[in-house]
Amino acid sequence: MRQRNVKNKMEIIANSSFVIQNAEEMIGNWSKVFSNNQPIYLEIGMGKGDFIIENAKRYPNINFIGIEKSASILALAIKKMDGLDLDNLRLIHLDAMDISKVFHHEIDKIFLNFSDPWPKERHEKRRLTSSTFIQKYDDIFKNNKIIEMKTDNQKLFEYSLISLNKNAYRITEISLDLHHSDIPYNIMTEYEKKFSSQNNNIYYVKVEK
Amino acid sequence: MRQRNVKNKMEIIANSSFVIQNAEEMIGNWSKVFSNNQPIYLEIGMGKGDFIIENAKRYPNINFIGIEKSASILALAIKKMDGLDLDNLRLIHLDAMDISKVFHHEIDKIFLNFSDPWPKERHEKRRLTSSTFIQKYDDIFKNNKIIEMKTDNQKLFEYSLISLNKNAYRITEISLDLHHSDIPYNIMTEYEKKFSSQNNNIYYVKVEK
Repeated sequence: MRQRNVKNKMEIIANSSFVIQNAEEMIGNWSKVFSNNQPIYLEIGMGKGDFIIENAKRYPNINFIGIEKSASILALAIKKMDGLDLDNLRLIHLDAMDISKVFHHEIDKIFLNFSDPWPKERHEKRRLTSSTFIQKYDDIFKNNKIIEMKTDNQKLFEYSLISLNKNAYRITEISLDLHHSDIPYNIMTEYEKKFSSQNNNIYYVKVEK
Repeated sequence: MRQRNVKNKMEIIANSSFVIQNAEEMIGNWSKVFSNNQPIYLEIGMGKGDFIIENAKRYPNINFIGIEKSASILALAIKKMDGLDLDNLRLIHLDAMDISKVFHHEIDKIFLNFSDPWPKERHEKRRLTSSTFIQKYDDIFKNNKIIEMKTDNQKLFEYSLISLNKNAYRITEISLDLHHSDIPYNIMTEYEKKFSSQNNNIYYVKVEK
């Protein structure tokens, strides 16, 4: 996602009650952060937050954590949440590379929405569906391992299917044209809303291990 | 594939030196049919034969067997082969349901090209990528199990990826737009040649177990 600088971004992040400031200290104890034992769903690269905010509103019996590495984008998401009262939503200013420092066998589902495709071969490891990342996910998942992915990038989608299969995740749902599919309850990201006004396909897959 | 009646089709099939007449008698002995130990690749539903004929010409070190249940379509394929001298190509007039009566752990690769999508739920078992068929393939494969599939039918493709994964086949190559992909050496079926003049996608996947 293109980034623009947001003034006072660090202050906005530091003062938000949605943001967990010292996330590494919570490792293994995220149920205590939420004061309940509801499942925890994680969105890696939450962008401006439309997807995770709407999920948190719609599913109060699930806890949602969004992580975003860009301080500017996270600050924009926080601004949107002004006045919202959602006990089941928390955010972390975090690079996905560091997720295993923050979570340990406590996540029930991971969402990857419109992740950076990193098209160059030499950047393969940076893709959120590379073996490098998938192995990190294995460390943070609790019991069942479920990943749901959406993208408009054909090459990233093809790559991801191969890589997920290589790492023993199997496809349980898939659509090669999500906006004209039978798959219910699609919650759109801000990028997806914009993008779907054009006439290209959105790819969706759910994998489990 | 739509079927038109071909006059003398049974006679054409009975008189072709490419056709193995009593295929069930060859079970376990297909290497003897070819008088060599080359790998054997099988196309299930070979249609009018463009794909398998071109493969046989291009890869003399592989043996190819095409099966087709429609006598009329098989007769059309045979007519095309008039004058051809291909020791590495044989055809069988056979319903895919009966493949395990004809082969036993001797096939190295299966091709499924533009198979009937059988869109109705109650016909699921007839799809060539249903668990019913995949289990038959397990019985006819030799060591490595490799299936290559092409289709223009989005729903069939989505269904197939899920079903193949469920049966422990994993994706090793995939294209959601084969005719604009980097995948080399695509040999087109007659259906594909016709279809690709329109502007729709051809889906391709290679799976292995």
